[in-house]
Amino acid sequence: MELWYTEEHTDYAKFSTKVKKHLYSEKSPFQQVDVIDTYEYGKILTLDGLVMVTEKDEFIYHDMITHVAMATNPDIKRVLVIGGGDGGTVRELTRYSTIEKIDMVEIDELVVKASKEFLPITSNKLDDERVTLYFEDGIKFVEDKENQYDLIIVDSTDPIGPGEGLFTREFYRNCFKALTENGILVNQNESPYYERDAKAMIRATGKLKDIFPTVEVYQFHMPTYPSGHWLFGFASKKLHPIKDFDADRWNSLNLKTKYYNTDIHVGAFALPTYVKEMIENGTK
Amino acid sequence: MELWYTEEHTDYAKFSTKVKKHLYSEKSPFQQVDVIDTYEYGKILTLDGLVMVTEKDEFIYHDMITHVAMATNPDIKRVLVIGGGDGGTVRELTRYSTIEKIDMVEIDELVVKASKEFLPITSNKLDDERVTLYFEDGIKFVEDKENQYDLIIVDSTDPIGPGEGLFTREFYRNCFKALTENGILVNQNESPYYERDAKAMIRATGKLKDIFPTVEVYQFHMPTYPSGHWLFGFASKKLHPIKDFDADRWNSLNLKTKYYNTDIHVGAFALPTYVKEMIENGTK
Repeated sequence: MELWYTEEHTDYAKFSTKVKKHLYSEKSPFQQVDVIDTYEYGKILTLDGLVMVTEKDEFIYHDMITHVAMATNPDIKRVLVIGGGDGGTVRELTRYSTIEKIDMVEIDELVVKASKEFLPITSNKLDDERVTLYFEDGIKFVEDKENQYDLIIVDSTDPIGPGEGLFTREFYRNCFKALTENGILVNQNESPYYERDAKAMIRATGKLKDIFPTVEVYQFHMPTYPSGHWLFGFASKKLHPIKDFDADRWNSLNLKTKYYNTDIHVGAFALPTYVKEMIENGTK
Repeated sequence: MELWYTEEHTDYAKFSTKVKKHLYSEKSPFQQVDVIDTYEYGKILTLDGLVMVTEKDEFIYHDMITHVAMATNPDIKRVLVIGGGDGGTVRELTRYSTIEKIDMVEIDELVVKASKEFLPITSNKLDDERVTLYFEDGIKFVEDKENQYDLIIVDSTDPIGPGEGLFTREFYRNCFKALTENGILVNQNESPYYERDAKAMIRATGKLKDIFPTVEVYQFHMPTYPSGHWLFGFASKKLHPIKDFDADRWNSLNLKTKYYNTDIHVGAFALPTYVKEMIENGTK
């Protein structure tokens, strides 16, 4: 028997990949959690049937969600990760000896459990002594925090289901408050290509612009996400990701990365004209 | 009845999109030519069952295959396009009033015929008076040309079937000879992500490096191609795509483009570390 996993990228476009084995399937109070082993992408973690992480290309996502902010401000010491239950974002952060504290707030303990069992590639640093795991709602977690984090990374799912509240104005306002003077917020910001994703990106970016003085969007090639064209947001109280970025300083750290480098740091902020216009105009 | 078009991106990964109508299907002496109308991407031209052009994202491919070279050398006057039967590359070239002559050599007249009938969006400038169409083998066409073109664009299919000879050392050598002193060659250069595509890219780039003093690879987001991460090669006898590039001069032309801009010109050459390493090492 042939098993294929299929994800609907839109109502009219879908992506399928051949499955070796369905390794894990559990329903948490928040979502359906599955792990499959595939021929093309290695193991894949899906939430509510959508690809979150694959062994083959997780390095791209996790490089780009961490190193852009860390290279903009290598003095970051205290980091909050919201979501990111697979552990890949924390893994990249732990490579910086300058980071003293990483709080990770994942609403769904089952995601961490499944990742620890089947995806050591991403979860193998969750036991780092600087890491504290909170199985709580990230929205509530930031409500009472003030001036505590140099970097907040919103490593969320799409703005449907448990991820929805992580795309709201109130949440972003609480993040602003929780950040230190030089604070940076990096948020999973969907894709510019398919209409529903683009609308979510435009809305989220507009809200951030109402709150943070600096808001930029940067892109990367994520083959297993819809369209392969994916975006993160970079918002800061004070720092600009290009003007305040010192390539030599990051390069002197000698971190080996498979996707990120200091040229791509700059190149990632060079958006296609149609994407720039969507963000500027606030409409697709 | 629901019709879906499916393309196999690898043996284990496929992409499907819902079809409104199968508009055209003919077998030429070279390949199977089809046009479908789809809900997500508008009309799509396929050759041997592989997506070549969609109405939704053709602007990305055609912007990036023409404007990078044209912005590096705005004095380009004589251009040869090999392949590109849909006409989109020629359409972008005709926007430059400085170009005096465009020869397009397409081996398969049926591709042009189908494009003229169903894809006016790409083919509507093939009748420009500066354009001469040759329905011939591009490999033979360049054999006896010397010092004739300022720019050669190899707008080819994959290196399987009729496109195969457009990835050979001998063909690139003949292109070198056919180019003028400042000549630039831009070639469709596959993707770095899936193994077969990456191997083709590495081989082609290696061959070009044996012939041209300057060879660079640049990337763009092409959602309907496998992985969405696509590459073109830039080879030149004399010009460097960044060092010899004058952003102000191109911007003064006031060409409206949906993907290309002078920031993305530079950003596109900032490749992920794993891609740079594949090219430098010559292996995947």
